[in-house]
Amino acid sequence: MLPDLPLEPVLEIIGVFVSGLSGALAAVRKQFDVFGVLVLAWAAGLGGGMLRDVFLGAVPPVGISDWRLIATAVAAGVVMYFFHPSLVRARRAIVVLDSGALALFTVVGTVKGLEYGAAPVAAVFVGVFTGVGGGVLRDLLTGEVPVVLHHRQLYAIPSLLGAVAIAGLWAADAYTTATSLLVVGGIFALRVLSLRFHLHAPGPWRGRAGWHGEHT
Amino acid sequence: MLPDLPLEPVLEIIGVFVSGLSGALAAVRKQFDVFGVLVLAWAAGLGGGMLRDVFLGAVPPVGISDWRLIATAVAAGVVMYFFHPSLVRARRAIVVLDSGALALFTVVGTVKGLEYGAAPVAAVFVGVFTGVGGGVLRDLLTGEVPVVLHHRQLYAIPSLLGAVAIAGLWAADAYTTATSLLVVGGIFALRVLSLRFHLHAPGPWRGRAGWHGEHT
Amino acid sequence: MLPDLPLEPVLEIIGVFVSGLSGALAAVRKQFDVFGVLVLAWAAGLGGGMLRDVFLGAVPPVGISDWRLIATAVAAGVVMYFFHPSLVRARRAIVVLDSGALALFTVVGTVKGLEYGAAPVAAVFVGVFTGVGGGVLRDLLTGEVPVVLHHRQLYAIPSLLGAVAIAGLWAADAYTTATSLLVVGGIFALRVLSLRFHLHAPGPWRGRAGWHGEHT
Repeated sequence: MLPDLPLEPVLEIIGVFVSGLSGALAAVRKQFDVFGVLVLAWAAGLGGGMLRDVFLGAVPPVGISDWRLIATAVAAGVVMYFFHPSLVRARRAIVVLDSGALALFTVVGTVKGLEYGAAPVAAVFVGVFTGVGGGVLRDLLTGEVPVVLHHRQLYAIPSLLGAVAIAGLWAADAYTTATSLLVVGGIFALRVLSLRFHLHAPGPWRGRAGWHGEHT
Repeated sequence: MLPDLPLEPVLEIIGVFVSGLSGALAAVRKQFDVFGVLVLAWAAGLGGGMLRDVFLGAVPPVGISDWRLIATAVAAGVVMYFFHPSLVRARRAIVVLDSGALALFTVVGTVKGLEYGAAPVAAVFVGVFTGVGGGVLRDLLTGEVPVVLHHRQLYAIPSLLGAVAIAGLWAADAYTTATSLLVVGGIFALRVLSLRFHLHAPGPWRGRAGWHGEHT
Repeated sequence: MLPDLPLEPVLEIIGVFVSGLSGALAAVRKQFDVFGVLVLAWAAGLGGGMLRDVFLGAVPPVGISDWRLIATAVAAGVVMYFFHPSLVRARRAIVVLDSGALALFTVVGTVKGLEYGAAPVAAVFVGVFTGVGGGVLRDLLTGEVPVVLHHRQLYAIPSLLGAVAIAGLWAADAYTTATSLLVVGGIFALRVLSLRFHLHAPGPWRGRAGWHGEHT
């Protein structure tokens, strides 16, 4: 049996770093200046948690008050600023790591919602926002339509399923380090497998003609 | 005399459904996937109320905690997802219904602001945000400049006048179900009449040349 | 020695007016209608303070509750609406005044953060958000990528240095009207000198080839 170690802070820092890389990469591609690169690392790494904290009334949000998380996001920005020619080639690795961040943020966010006494449905929403919010903020700040809304990959769906699982475990008094890591692993596996096997969410329904953009 | 029935919850659900349709329609037009359609239904239906609740400190906001409202928005998304070819033809009806949602949200939002002890000016702002905020969020998430800021239709003006009327009734201790329904009707009528008679807010002032984009 | 006069409210009103002009100018350029011009004046003048207040839990935020600040922003919008042909020619003056607003908002925001008991790092963030947030909101609402993220001028850097200076003075118990005005002057001077001497933040690092967009 696993002890209830304070794993969450460590996992959260890893998630912030990887998400921060994705934000800084988007900024580099848009030819932002060095300040813009750091801000995008911060927004992508901590934006989901900011939204979560504002919705829970947990102010000031960790994104501006927890210096360890802020330093982590800034470090991700600095790394991407200097090494982006190499890191662009490692994009596949970043996508996989980012799936890990999605999984971690979802679980950490849902649990924080429940700890703040939110109803299960609110905690689930908060968890999904924590998971996908950083990417949405990254896209809005770089002038893009949020990719999670139209790319048809399975990204929010694994997050949603994981948040529901955590809320269920919490209600059943079965939330432990072990079960939470299981959910993290499940979200991550679903996301990575969907990438590997090109599973997609359907586009707009076209009646008898089937889905628009259906992959035949 | 009308009894003070709990009309507001019913009216709010209708407003969320209709606004949700407008959000889902925007998502379908942008070829968002099914998740994006549901998110846009949620953002358009509940975004104004989210902003209201965050500004009032009423957290978690109803948009993530009231399962009836969330289910209503999701239902609007599902309906639009499957029936959008027919519903696009019903666009005129949706615009009229959306005017009703504007009226309902404005009144509900202003009253909630006053109930939370906000000063009249703050309650008026909160009411207008509740009325127009969902549409602004819908536009930002689909990569559009918010239509309320440049389309020159009378949309925010009726909302503003209605919110001021509610704050006045409240201050005069004359806020009842009957008077609030009168204000809802007034906002709705002003909006629909402005559509029918092509009333416009003026564009940028051009000095002696009159307004830019003036309809002559 | 300067008495501790209530200078801040006066300085804040000046800042709101000048920032409001910049927002209204952006709206006029985008051919927004009169309502859109007023909203952009409000968003640019008060958006930074809204973000600050939401992050501090100081709700309702001053941007919807302080009628003097709201009236100031609206007045800026009205002035720009009617006089924009002349004011466009005064753009250089507006840029200088806007540097003053950046300085004032940064100091006022950082101090409010500290007064609300935020940790120094959070207060610094809140100060910078107060300084640059209005411009970011202005850009997002007009469909632009926030200029502060990519224009390579020194804009956020002076704000950040000033916020750190205020937090340091506060910690050293040396925050007075005199020292705070010194910091306001320092931020302003750094910003104006960087404009005058074309100092830039570096763009993306390109390895041995130097910075992209380097000014040779």
